[in-house]
Amino acid sequence: MSSNYLNFRNSVPWVILLLEALFLIRSYFLFLRLDGLDLLLSSYPEFQDVNHMVIFGFGFFLMVLRRYGFSSTGFNLLIIVLGVQCSVLVEDLLVFFHLEADEGILKSIAKALISMTAVAISTGAVLGKTNPVQLIVMTLVELIVFYVSRWINRRYLEVGDHLSLMHVHLFGAYFGLAVTSCFPEPSPRLDKNRSTPKSDLFSMLGSVFLWVFWPSFNSLLAQSRRKAALNTYFALAVSAVTAFMLSALTSKDGKFRMTHIHSAALAGGVTVSFTAQMISHPWIAMILGLLGSAITILGSHCLQRCLNPPLKIHDTSGVHFTFGLPAVLGALAQVVLLVIREWTNSSSLGYLVLLHVGAFCQTISLALLTGFITGFILNTRPLKIIPVSKYFEDQFYWEVSLDVKL
Amino acid sequence: MSSNYLNFRNSVPWVILLLEALFLIRSYFLFLRLDGLDLLLSSYPEFQDVNHMVIFGFGFFLMVLRRYGFSSTGFNLLIIVLGVQCSVLVEDLLVFFHLEADEGILKSIAKALISMTAVAISTGAVLGKTNPVQLIVMTLVELIVFYVSRWINRRYLEVGDHLSLMHVHLFGAYFGLAVTSCFPEPSPRLDKNRSTPKSDLFSMLGSVFLWVFWPSFNSLLAQSRRKAALNTYFALAVSAVTAFMLSALTSKDGKFRMTHIHSAALAGGVTVSFTAQMISHPWIAMILGLLGSAITILGSHCLQRCLNPPLKIHDTSGVHFTFGLPAVLGALAQVVLLVIREWTNSSSLGYLVLLHVGAFCQTISLALLTGFITGFILNTRPLKIIPVSKYFEDQFYWEVSLDVKL
Amino acid sequence: MSSNYLNFRNSVPWVILLLEALFLIRSYFLFLRLDGLDLLLSSYPEFQDVNHMVIFGFGFFLMVLRRYGFSSTGFNLLIIVLGVQCSVLVEDLLVFFHLEADEGILKSIAKALISMTAVAISTGAVLGKTNPVQLIVMTLVELIVFYVSRWINRRYLEVGDHLSLMHVHLFGAYFGLAVTSCFPEPSPRLDKNRSTPKSDLFSMLGSVFLWVFWPSFNSLLAQSRRKAALNTYFALAVSAVTAFMLSALTSKDGKFRMTHIHSAALAGGVTVSFTAQMISHPWIAMILGLLGSAITILGSHCLQRCLNPPLKIHDTSGVHFTFGLPAVLGALAQVVLLVIREWTNSSSLGYLVLLHVGAFCQTISLALLTGFITGFILNTRPLKIIPVSKYFEDQFYWEVSLDVKL
Repeated sequence: MSSNYLNFRNSVPWVILLLEALFLIRSYFLFLRLDGLDLLLSSYPEFQDVNHMVIFGFGFFLMVLRRYGFSSTGFNLLIIVLGVQCSVLVEDLLVFFHLEADEGILKSIAKALISMTAVAISTGAVLGKTNPVQLIVMTLVELIVFYVSRWINRRYLEVGDHLSLMHVHLFGAYFGLAVTSCFPEPSPRLDKNRSTPKSDLFSMLGSVFLWVFWPSFNSLLAQSRRKAALNTYFALAVSAVTAFMLSALTSKDGKFRMTHIHSAALAGGVTVSFTAQMISHPWIAMILGLLGSAITILGSHCLQRCLNPPLKIHDTSGVHFTFGLPAVLGALAQVVLLVIREWTNSSSLGYLVLLHVGAFCQTISLALLTGFITGFILNTRPLKIIPVSKYFEDQFYWEVSLDVKL
Repeated sequence: MSSNYLNFRNSVPWVILLLEALFLIRSYFLFLRLDGLDLLLSSYPEFQDVNHMVIFGFGFFLMVLRRYGFSSTGFNLLIIVLGVQCSVLVEDLLVFFHLEADEGILKSIAKALISMTAVAISTGAVLGKTNPVQLIVMTLVELIVFYVSRWINRRYLEVGDHLSLMHVHLFGAYFGLAVTSCFPEPSPRLDKNRSTPKSDLFSMLGSVFLWVFWPSFNSLLAQSRRKAALNTYFALAVSAVTAFMLSALTSKDGKFRMTHIHSAALAGGVTVSFTAQMISHPWIAMILGLLGSAITILGSHCLQRCLNPPLKIHDTSGVHFTFGLPAVLGALAQVVLLVIREWTNSSSLGYLVLLHVGAFCQTISLALLTGFITGFILNTRPLKIIPVSKYFEDQFYWEVSLDVKL
Repeated sequence: MSSNYLNFRNSVPWVILLLEALFLIRSYFLFLRLDGLDLLLSSYPEFQDVNHMVIFGFGFFLMVLRRYGFSSTGFNLLIIVLGVQCSVLVEDLLVFFHLEADEGILKSIAKALISMTAVAISTGAVLGKTNPVQLIVMTLVELIVFYVSRWINRRYLEVGDHLSLMHVHLFGAYFGLAVTSCFPEPSPRLDKNRSTPKSDLFSMLGSVFLWVFWPSFNSLLAQSRRKAALNTYFALAVSAVTAFMLSALTSKDGKFRMTHIHSAALAGGVTVSFTAQMISHPWIAMILGLLGSAITILGSHCLQRCLNPPLKIHDTSGVHFTFGLPAVLGALAQVVLLVIREWTNSSSLGYLVLLHVGAFCQTISLALLTGFITGFILNTRPLKIIPVSKYFEDQFYWEVSLDVKL
């Protein structure tokens, strides 16, 4: 371990330093474009909600492993701030070369935070199995590929700006799954990848934060902001209720399972993210919340029993059923709603459906493809240094006092 | 246990499903009334504060029992979202039949969240003694009765809309007390209904959240919003200081007691809730905060020694002194302030005092009466399945890994 | 212990009561100056952010000791609310005697909250070594001296109102250090002044809160609010990244150390506080964040090894390197930026630099001087009753159930 470990010690700070230096050099040419500030002056509180949600909510939401609390919150903070800087400067570069309209820097940061949700979700899939260098590489690759995917969607498939950002859950989940499938599976007898009641409580804390701030997340860049927030609220409410119902129905002895509640309570927000700003009847949002929650809980049983073992996928915090399946459902719902709305206008209907289905397929296939490639790269010699026996251990990265851990 | 338990397993999800189905069918006729949205466009941040406070704050505030953390936060989320849906749809029904003016759906949700505080408070009184089915039945009954009580107050006793909502603490506390008095008392030797330092810290976390967001709560629907927020802030500040003072004075060895701080720091917000928007001198709000905090701490000693044992009331998280007594004080203070203000105008004074006293008596007596009936119903055969020995146990409802619990 | 202790029991509540009585009497003459409310009507959400940050964030940020969780959060709440009341009423007094312009009460509270950050920081230096009476005396003295310092800065050194408030970190850190140097050092073999993973997680929670709300803190009273918020955001992002880099570089085995992350992630916000509203190129804010983070981590090594042992300073939660050094750096950066900007205008340059250096020296020397005096007073007979062996113990002040503590 020692020689590899020294290698790791040498690499982590220098990777970060290199990146930071690049950002700083690039930012030398960045001005505070104050003319675009007025646009979002009124939305600073919602911006703060999203900031809070991504940094704090996801950090604690991911604290499901008993010995991985420091890394869950700490590395989440690290990759979010790295990613936001990277994303802001990429955006600034695009503006500089006139490839994109200038929309002000607060909006850039807001977009960066929403894009980083993809990385936070992917992190959940490989939680405890990656070292910081792997995480940073994954962050940068994923962020850039997500940019490319959004650009294709917007340029060739006529997807709006806000909507292209809402593919973030879909992209993050399937990218993460593809990456994690390249990692060796931990021993099934291991108990480090289980949760304790205490880690579950911290995770519940993060989960409730995500739940509360999700309406702000779905509405921050939407055109009809209040409508998007309200529809998301309704979807979340129904999915929280459904989570309790189905958790009791599907688990042994009719008891509730905490991971079900964590995941399924949020499913409504994910499902409705594509359509929140165009739904005008709350009952549709509520139905979507119900279906999202149902697919999450049923999916968690099916995937963990049927799909993951043969495919040898170990999805630590269950991002496939928490974010992947509800996002697929949401994308389908968007097409169905479109068909219903444009039914009379049959001339353009086929074309519109094709565009939406195309955007969905493009996003998911690019995520899977680049995810596999990234996973392969992450497991090459220069980056891979954690033996499977050291998975899910804070002590491998952090100075931990010798007490009983959370 | 098994046959009863299977009965429980069968009932919980179906009750939730039935309710959700009702809500969905009803919501089919609900439109997003966007015309009312402008009114509250600017108050979205305050709305989020209240949302955060009710879902997160109360969930963690109630985490006082050592083995009941999952249920405290989880069931709080469940009943709040059920109750909000129920309340929004009742409101929509009233608008549909022209019994009430249409005020937009964001205001509906805000009102629903504030109303649900009554249920969250009542839950505190029966914490650990009810199963989810009982909780859901209690939620629905309490919500409807609180609606009726508000309607009587507004229709016959000339209480304004905002003020009628502020009776929520009074109603919730006495309804909860009446319900809990119908439950069998747990054995006094039991140690599960005590707190641990860790559960106290989580509870402190929730308590600080409630403290911070209380000004938003008291001012969200008030006419003079800033005035209400500022007066609440002053009252809370004084009551937090007084909590420390009286806790040291009244407890053994002059040490502080954490439950005193939790309860009494919030007492100012409860006491001033009736009068926050009409007080124009901060010192009055400060005096009310002082008195509220004092009555809470003195009440906690008196009630636990003198009143609760003979009446056989077991009030798990002390809602009587945390919310009940300060609310009574606040209602009295409102009458006193009214008398002082209208002293010169002696013709209408008697009538106004009568109206206010009437609203107070109506609310408290309706709460007690329906609380007893609800408590009686909850303890009938079909609903009652927890033996006293299983009180205060997460394991009875949740799949808990076999570790030492919080 | 007993006779001293009874003395303590007698003194704490009476000190609080006396203060509260003074505040109440004074507040009798305080009116809600509603004319100033419009000014800040739109900034209520940012005000709430700062309120949340000071009460909740600092309370949990300070929860670094294994047996001092109750006191960290509880006493933080106590001194903040006491200090805010004191500060509001002092401000009101100044307005009354026409020494200051009336700016409305919400702004008074906002200023009070920002000023109280100084006390929260000083508390960190003496954490676990003071009893509540000492804390209260320190709060009042520090608040008044900080007022005097700000007044000198504004009156004689032409420092603006917002900028004079931003000296809060500098003042708080050096005042706290001077106070703590008068306290006897705890035994180095003591393990109560270490953290556990659980207390570190709670502290991380508070730290993330501070991180998220710091842009609101730096921008609340600034003239160009969005600019200040954005620059702070960039500085914080870079300092969080740098914290990870340098923590791995400087610690044994290349592991991350949690206390480094806590402190250095916030250093950017402290460093940029003086200049946030005048920087027009984000890369300057980013460089400042980088340097702030670096000085914090390097400082933490140097101070703990070289400076603190010979000077016999025991700085419990490391406020010197967390807030002191970055604030010094920020003050220097302000002068450098000023020199660069005013280079052409050489006539007034020398004078301006002199003013800025003067304000810096005045603040730090007044903080050190009054800190020593306060520390000396706190260690006199009537106030000092904690033996060194009772340091860092919740049980000395709180009724704690006899379980294993956090």
